[in-house]
Amino acid sequence: MTGEAAYADWIAVDWGTTNLRAWAMRDGRPVAEATSDKGMGVLDRADFEPALLELIDPWLGQGRMSIVACGMVGSRQGWVEAPYAAVPARPLGADMATPTVSDSRLDIRVIAGLKQASPADVMRGEETQIAGFLSANPAFDGVLCLPGTHSKWAQISAGEVVSFRTFMTGEMFSLLSKRSVLRLSVTEGWDADAFVDAVSDAMSRPEALAAKLFTLRAESLIAGLTGAAALSRLSGLLIGAELAAARPYWLGQNVALIGAERLTDAYATALKVQGLDPIRADATDATLAGLAAARALIMETTE
Amino acid sequence: MTGEAAYADWIAVDWGTTNLRAWAMRDGRPVAEATSDKGMGVLDRADFEPALLELIDPWLGQGRMSIVACGMVGSRQGWVEAPYAAVPARPLGADMATPTVSDSRLDIRVIAGLKQASPADVMRGEETQIAGFLSANPAFDGVLCLPGTHSKWAQISAGEVVSFRTFMTGEMFSLLSKRSVLRLSVTEGWDADAFVDAVSDAMSRPEALAAKLFTLRAESLIAGLTGAAALSRLSGLLIGAELAAARPYWLGQNVALIGAERLTDAYATALKVQGLDPIRADATDATLAGLAAARALIMETTE
Repeated sequence: MTGEAAYADWIAVDWGTTNLRAWAMRDGRPVAEATSDKGMGVLDRADFEPALLELIDPWLGQGRMSIVACGMVGSRQGWVEAPYAAVPARPLGADMATPTVSDSRLDIRVIAGLKQASPADVMRGEETQIAGFLSANPAFDGVLCLPGTHSKWAQISAGEVVSFRTFMTGEMFSLLSKRSVLRLSVTEGWDADAFVDAVSDAMSRPEALAAKLFTLRAESLIAGLTGAAALSRLSGLLIGAELAAARPYWLGQNVALIGAERLTDAYATALKVQGLDPIRADATDATLAGLAAARALIMETTE
Repeated sequence: MTGEAAYADWIAVDWGTTNLRAWAMRDGRPVAEATSDKGMGVLDRADFEPALLELIDPWLGQGRMSIVACGMVGSRQGWVEAPYAAVPARPLGADMATPTVSDSRLDIRVIAGLKQASPADVMRGEETQIAGFLSANPAFDGVLCLPGTHSKWAQISAGEVVSFRTFMTGEMFSLLSKRSVLRLSVTEGWDADAFVDAVSDAMSRPEALAAKLFTLRAESLIAGLTGAAALSRLSGLLIGAELAAARPYWLGQNVALIGAERLTDAYATALKVQGLDPIRADATDATLAGLAAARALIMETTE
């Protein structure tokens, strides 16, 4: 490195559909963090480099900076299309993609996603969290659940993702609670009993889900259902439907949850009713550990 | 009636969440129709009278005009809250509501809805279509299906609605195809085979619905699924989930469909795979016949 020294050894980037997060990494730890709402969804291809520089410029020196990014930044609508590795595969086994940049200080790699032929499925971003979890738990054999906008269930064996399924639970919850007629019946707040009952209800009769959603509206109109109970039941019905469909993944398995605290709380509660006691890992920790694992792979191949 | 004669004998109004439709009725037939996008959803209470006058003013004379309205105009957020009659009940059995008006020529009645205590459910507007269907088919005994934003299934016996259930199928289809990640994978067009396969798929394994939605996105990314096939499968999965949940309603029953042609086509196709051959009625015809039946009830009680 020539001239002015950089603040960071390398930079870790988590670039999803709605948010961009970057961390300055030094001596193996994040020493600074910056975020913006310039997610992949609002950017044209030419906008990615300025959006990134806006956040990380203070961390650059005059030399080249190694930057490792995961998430939807690698999608077809992203900065550069990174490949998908076909499962079974190690979560970081595939070649990373390199976007074209104007600023020669930027040495960027975008992590590849995973795909599954049948049933057809894809992931981008979660493979990095899985790699991070496995770097902290190398002997883990079992099932990982990553709840979120598009929840993922992944079967892990011998360090590989064997199979996985995606559920649109978080997106359905957001659409139904904010944009459907149910928005008139839900409010903030949490009713733990209503949640647990709804999970059990959806799991025991998943075929009735389509009928049970409007019941929330009707009960709030004619039976005094509170907004908090309606919201909790909506969450429970959708998570219950996910658990019913994902049963082959978790039944009798060793399950770990990776996600934000509030969401993994809800899934842990739901799974406990089924007799499971999932271990839990923080999503940001897993992402950072996965980006560090990817960085280590890059160092191996370039040394 | 004094002075200038009115163009209409009475006026029929279908006032839903998104649209307002009015018909000038003379000698038992609609002789003029007017529509606007001033649905209940965009109006404050003071806006209803001007929105209606804008459409029907040319049909008024100097005397009082009898106007009969159905739909969400009678909801809590509407012009006047009309009651709900508890089932089992005749579809037009309950007292109608009368909104306050400034223009003394307007003599308006808003038709009451129906409610069900357990499982909790409500309808507003469909009771009028049911009444219209029954006025044309007075001996009908069986099940009516009214597909739409909020599809209704109603069990009919001896002229009464015995029980009913609401499914948010149309609203889910709209949200998922226009506002979720699936919007990137669907286009206009129809693939009849994809629809029928998806209906069967959802009906045979309704618990897997939550997993099958994202498969549409994944197949379009990695397996060349066309936009028309994705849209048709989305429709089939949601209608199949509705049919799975509504099975106690239609299994072995005499079923009639009331709705717009394209929608009843889809439901009829789906039900035929199950061995049913539903009769079909047009939604507008049913609405007009129901409003006429309500008008006849008003005449009976005021004569």
